[in-house]
Amino acid sequence: MKYLLVIAHGSRRMASNDEVRDVVRQFELQEHDFDRVATAFLELDKPDIPQGLITAIEQGATDIVIVPYFLSAGRHVSEDIPAEVASVRKDYPNVMIKIAPYLGASDRMPEILLTQANEV
Amino acid sequence: MKYLLVIAHGSRRMASNDEVRDVVRQFELQEHDFDRVATAFLELDKPDIPQGLITAIEQGATDIVIVPYFLSAGRHVSEDIPAEVASVRKDYPNVMIKIAPYLGASDRMPEILLTQANEV
Repeated sequence: MKYLLVIAHGSRRMASNDEVRDVVRQFELQEHDFDRVATAFLELDKPDIPQGLITAIEQGATDIVIVPYFLSAGRHVSEDIPAEVASVRKDYPNVMIKIAPYLGASDRMPEILLTQANEV
Repeated sequence: MKYLLVIAHGSRRMASNDEVRDVVRQFELQEHDFDRVATAFLELDKPDIPQGLITAIEQGATDIVIVPYFLSAGRHVSEDIPAEVASVRKDYPNVMIKIAPYLGASDRMPEILLTQANEV
């Protein structure tokens, strides 16, 4: 069972976390081959990364792809997220957990910024 | 003269700021009708927002579009950026300065996340 987990930093401002959840909900309107899609937070909201992964596995996920909802390759992307993932991976050696490139690494970013610029 | 100014938060980690500058440089490869494109930072790197706007105006910009390179509509997007822009706007009443919707508000975000997910 293929599962997509989008990981955001998490904010003290709950509306920001809800915004991420809303983006992830919009996946339901897209064509894709994931059986389930969910959100987890590095900090400040729930589920955290281990909780998000364990929920996925309990729901039957055998193949999990994590996308970091981050704009730059800072410590959170390069160290914190991989460390949290590694802590779960060792307990579930039969589940494939992969970390995709973070959002800001997308080569479509200029195109999206341009679309936003043309909205005004 | 049409000018696009992408505004990022700015990071203590200079490589993150360089990443934003690189994304903005990629604009040169896109089709668009801006005469110039540049980056400014809310904090922690230069130029700051007033400096970025004044440079644009000194270069002849008459029509400036700002795109906030932010993922959520927090205080930075809703208050800090508009306040910085207003501080410059009052000195240059003949220059049109508009703030476009921030990056995270793009309805193409799910599609981009999906593209990233399919990279692994």
